[in-house]
Amino acid sequence: MTQSWWLNPCKRIDGLCVERAQERQQQLTKPAGSLGRLESLAVQLAGLQGQVKPSLAQVWIAIFAGDHGVVAEGVSAFPQEVTGQMLLNFVNGGAAISVLARQLGASLEVVDLGTVTSTLDLPGVRHLHIGAGTANFAQGPAMTQAQGEQALQAGRDSALRALASGAQLFIGGEMGIGNTTAASALACALLDCPVAHLTGPGTGLDAAGVSHKAQVIERALALHAAQRGDALHTLFNLGGFEIAALVGAYLACAQEGVAVLVDGFICSVAALLAVRLNPQVRPWLLFGHRGAEPGHRHVLETLEAEPVLELGLRLGEGSGAALAVPLLRLACELHGQMATFTEAAVADRPA
Amino acid sequence: MTQSWWLNPCKRIDGLCVERAQERQQQLTKPAGSLGRLESLAVQLAGLQGQVKPSLAQVWIAIFAGDHGVVAEGVSAFPQEVTGQMLLNFVNGGAAISVLARQLGASLEVVDLGTVTSTLDLPGVRHLHIGAGTANFAQGPAMTQAQGEQALQAGRDSALRALASGAQLFIGGEMGIGNTTAASALACALLDCPVAHLTGPGTGLDAAGVSHKAQVIERALALHAAQRGDALHTLFNLGGFEIAALVGAYLACAQEGVAVLVDGFICSVAALLAVRLNPQVRPWLLFGHRGAEPGHRHVLETLEAEPVLELGLRLGEGSGAALAVPLLRLACELHGQMATFTEAAVADRPA
Repeated sequence: MTQSWWLNPCKRIDGLCVERAQERQQQLTKPAGSLGRLESLAVQLAGLQGQVKPSLAQVWIAIFAGDHGVVAEGVSAFPQEVTGQMLLNFVNGGAAISVLARQLGASLEVVDLGTVTSTLDLPGVRHLHIGAGTANFAQGPAMTQAQGEQALQAGRDSALRALASGAQLFIGGEMGIGNTTAASALACALLDCPVAHLTGPGTGLDAAGVSHKAQVIERALALHAAQRGDALHTLFNLGGFEIAALVGAYLACAQEGVAVLVDGFICSVAALLAVRLNPQVRPWLLFGHRGAEPGHRHVLETLEAEPVLELGLRLGEGSGAALAVPLLRLACELHGQMATFTEAAVADRPA
Repeated sequence: MTQSWWLNPCKRIDGLCVERAQERQQQLTKPAGSLGRLESLAVQLAGLQGQVKPSLAQVWIAIFAGDHGVVAEGVSAFPQEVTGQMLLNFVNGGAAISVLARQLGASLEVVDLGTVTSTLDLPGVRHLHIGAGTANFAQGPAMTQAQGEQALQAGRDSALRALASGAQLFIGGEMGIGNTTAASALACALLDCPVAHLTGPGTGLDAAGVSHKAQVIERALALHAAQRGDALHTLFNLGGFEIAALVGAYLACAQEGVAVLVDGFICSVAALLAVRLNPQVRPWLLFGHRGAEPGHRHVLETLEAEPVLELGLRLGEGSGAALAVPLLRLACELHGQMATFTEAAVADRPA
């Protein structure tokens, strides 16, 4: 393994399967195109899975958690110990993503990259202790290059476990008090977009809190301006451990040929970073949900991504992606199980 | 039973359950409001079901089919025998709604109100033979008052069967070549909106076809202008048997206390008719999907309805509503199964 494994080529889409899946869609007993997005999703998954009739029986959900030094600047509505408390809630089954994973029959893995409660040792959580949270990126780099590469590799390791388990879809989720601040800062650096357009209330800041958060981000962008054109160092300067893990997971999924369903704002910023590091990642990414955080829209537009759902969520944890899973499954089942005009002896429209 | 059973009062919403469900939402381990629409849907269902933790285990799907005399004017892309052919496809399991009902574990009932193939006798289909399709409403009333009342009652009968089966959610679907023409004509009469805004391609007309369809509707509206203010006679003049059945089903569900999930354009027009006949129906209606047919948006705005999904569907059959069921179920499961801050020992944000 070289240090730059993320530059390795991604798996190719199976063009023949795409064509055959498109042909099948035309033969099903419905007016052509009448299943809308569900048709293109089934065809896309056929190309990614190399199967004319794709399946999403096996879904892997990995939650990456980490704390953020920038919370010292007063940018979050919740106290920082919540990150560790929520880890316990994830494995105990009480968090939103725990309920969703159970209902979907999905595998749920919880990876603690590094929280302020560095003594945490919870059964069912993979504790990696990369650091006691990141450093305050308003005063210096969020993480060292070594920490950043560890976090990328941690995401890759999760993707490889998903692959080994037979997963047909990878969902990454995140938990980390303060991580919308990191995501907004990253998006500003990558998109050259005004901070005000990409900064929002996160878990519940008021207008004054959002304004303060934007000022902190402005300061951090000025501090790290020299490396702004470099996606990798921007990630290390302004990111979080859990964001770097998402980036690594998306890259490895695309290399190994596992379709990815991207969650909300923070995950979409990680997706943008992955695509900037290796543009071949893009076709492997599906998008579950357009969230309430205002910056999400800009990031999605840049990625030319059209999420399946828009329900006003702003929770994270992979919840928006998990909620889209039943629709993707139904898209596959409609594609695979509907009768053709010939099979059902139904008249197609005159040519 | 009087002739005007549809004027009887609807069941009241359980306000105490709404309050207690709202309180519960505030205590769950997530930032307040972060589950967006899923929170309000769970609270609404709590009020409709009279249970703080609602459930949607039992879902009833009724497909109402009928043919349309107005097809003689050349308003559809598909031949009229498709209505009957699709009835067979519904019960044989090959249609989109058949696949969806199977995957959702929902009951599927198929009711043939009256198709041009009047000799149809398919196992598993309820054939009511109200007429060999409606009359051509561009030349006279689509149905007699007696036929219209039979169709309303047929919808009510289906709702009563749903109730008896223990259904917690009623989905009505429709099948009938030509029925977007009927639905557009009804919407024009009810909304006083230009025909061009409410007329679309249906199953696949080209621009010339849509223009011709709009002209046919203009002619019909002029013919039936005298009764335009009267929702019931507008339904009988311009509707279809399956549309009247949907109206009857929605009315009866609201009277009996079964929540309704409304499908696309045609079902939303039926919902508008039901609300015009009896405004107490409105709180019982949830909306599954905003479809591609251009008139749908106007009808939804009039109803102040915000559908759960928008996936570019234009199939009918109840498919858009069925696709929203997993999201409503997950809303209930998140609401019922997530841990509270106290249960999980997670710090809530400072007051």
